[in-house]
Amino acid sequence: MRVAILAHEKFPDDAKTAVGILRYGDYEVVGILDRDHPGEAVRDHLPDVQDAPIFERMTEVPRCDALVVGVAPIGGGFDETWRDDVRTAIERGCDVIAGLHYFLSEDEEFATLAAEHDVELRDVRRPPDDLTVADGTAGDVDARIVLTVGTDCSSGKMTSSFELRDAARERGLDAAVAPTGQTGIMIAGWGIAIDRVISDFAAGATERLVEEVGEKDVIFVEGQGALVHPAYSGVTTSILHGAQPYALVLCHIAGRGQFGGYERFDLPDLRTYIQLYENMSAPISGATVDAGMVNTHGMPVDAADDAIDEFAAAIDAPATDPVRYDVDDVLDALL
Amino acid sequence: MRVAILAHEKFPDDAKTAVGILRYGDYEVVGILDRDHPGEAVRDHLPDVQDAPIFERMTEVPRCDALVVGVAPIGGGFDETWRDDVRTAIERGCDVIAGLHYFLSEDEEFATLAAEHDVELRDVRRPPDDLTVADGTAGDVDARIVLTVGTDCSSGKMTSSFELRDAARERGLDAAVAPTGQTGIMIAGWGIAIDRVISDFAAGATERLVEEVGEKDVIFVEGQGALVHPAYSGVTTSILHGAQPYALVLCHIAGRGQFGGYERFDLPDLRTYIQLYENMSAPISGATVDAGMVNTHGMPVDAADDAIDEFAAAIDAPATDPVRYDVDDVLDALL
Repeated sequence: MRVAILAHEKFPDDAKTAVGILRYGDYEVVGILDRDHPGEAVRDHLPDVQDAPIFERMTEVPRCDALVVGVAPIGGGFDETWRDDVRTAIERGCDVIAGLHYFLSEDEEFATLAAEHDVELRDVRRPPDDLTVADGTAGDVDARIVLTVGTDCSSGKMTSSFELRDAARERGLDAAVAPTGQTGIMIAGWGIAIDRVISDFAAGATERLVEEVGEKDVIFVEGQGALVHPAYSGVTTSILHGAQPYALVLCHIAGRGQFGGYERFDLPDLRTYIQLYENMSAPISGATVDAGMVNTHGMPVDAADDAIDEFAAAIDAPATDPVRYDVDDVLDALL
Repeated sequence: MRVAILAHEKFPDDAKTAVGILRYGDYEVVGILDRDHPGEAVRDHLPDVQDAPIFERMTEVPRCDALVVGVAPIGGGFDETWRDDVRTAIERGCDVIAGLHYFLSEDEEFATLAAEHDVELRDVRRPPDDLTVADGTAGDVDARIVLTVGTDCSSGKMTSSFELRDAARERGLDAAVAPTGQTGIMIAGWGIAIDRVISDFAAGATERLVEEVGEKDVIFVEGQGALVHPAYSGVTTSILHGAQPYALVLCHIAGRGQFGGYERFDLPDLRTYIQLYENMSAPISGATVDAGMVNTHGMPVDAADDAIDEFAAAIDAPATDPVRYDVDDVLDALL
């Protein structure tokens, strides 16, 4: 499947979905839309993923099957400056795949146009309509359940989940990711966006994901948010209790001291944070933080290596940056 | 407003909404529907609330303005054995007020019938459609914010909130409840059912409730669920961080050792539970558990008094049963 990815004004640092698809997705990416970087290429920014040219608008992009909305703004709204490109994509016969809270399929103009041009508007954040409350049974699944958790949002939980899956598969293990967010869903082709689920059903939806994966050597559940985040902690807690993990991988952004976008709130120190995750899990599945991942994006290699060492020492467990290095030591600690 | 309350097979012990309305609501209750207790009266079960006769079916109930669905089954579904009574109510010109996840206004038969008979189907659990993520600003409201929290569901958080409000008002304080569940909303006439909100917006919806109440001497935020509940912990956490309380009131059911309906999971011991609530709040608003409430329903008075004393000793703070006794000591500890 050939796709273009919309990432206006955000590529690559604030375009988590775009970068995730470039890195792990099973798509051929024919172009990135970013009006701040026309004429450049992905490799000018990210040397280690598939390359693609960057365009200013959809009219310039080579023929493809779908346009993917590759940015996820706070609140999940639709940015009206994207409307021309989405309209062009539909008129050119492309499906549009989006993970916004705002459903493109409920936008009157897009819905009408999509019907005319016989293309699909796929809102991957739309949850199944038969969800219900958790039974408390995810832990009964015959698999080692590992959950990636974070000290903040956008700290590498999705990336860590897929890197760990790939490393486990390289060892011959039967491993899967249970995707809980829009990018993970776009990469894996299935999943439920837990943040879009009715809060009463969020743990139940996570439980269903684990039970749908079923018997495996290991399931990496993609975590969301952070346990004491001012806005998203409820999603994190629902996943922690719904997934009933055996082990946790703590993901952190090197040097991060306050919550991104909520700078009046300090992150707890790492030892306190670990205690909190383990104490919250204790009555349900008794998970322990057995390893860590640290995002050192943009740091010189020496500083990054120091940051990894410091983080591993602070959490007293193996840690790495899963984008820079292999995750073998981390995987060892989880199995 | 004259209302009948549907509570089939659940009155009074498993009909929290029915009992809440009888105790705190501003309605004249003309009858309870419970096919297990026809011919009896509310006073046969609950001597301290407004009395009303109990009927087997809606056809027997005196004329009234509305039928209230007064039970909230796990999962919030509609029980098809209620259909005849709801149909009868609509045909008799009654509005129907429900707090289910299943919206009566989206039930084809009821919607058609309601249009024919010009009555309203009010689904109080339907959230506003313009919710968004929390800004982390509830604590800026000029009010003492107190949150009722529980060791389990149905442990008395709604009751405690209204009893504390009434006691504060008796002292001449400007006090309000911020209702977060269907019964509280039915009693207060406004609010948002946080468990029905998209999980990403649950903290934001709580923040909006607190900000809508605005400047007060004290706001009692009605809590939901429990912090380590296998299914509902996400809702609890969202409210804890969205409301940014200054103080917490821990509500407990005397003798409860396992989660109701989830008996394979033990409740943490009370000191551990308090630590967990306080540690989870610490990075956001630093709330402390300053008092407790214990539900001793059905216990002989001596045993109840012992249970209250034991609970107060265990949590090392003033405590009472807000249905049996006044809440003055508890209120003192919160102001």
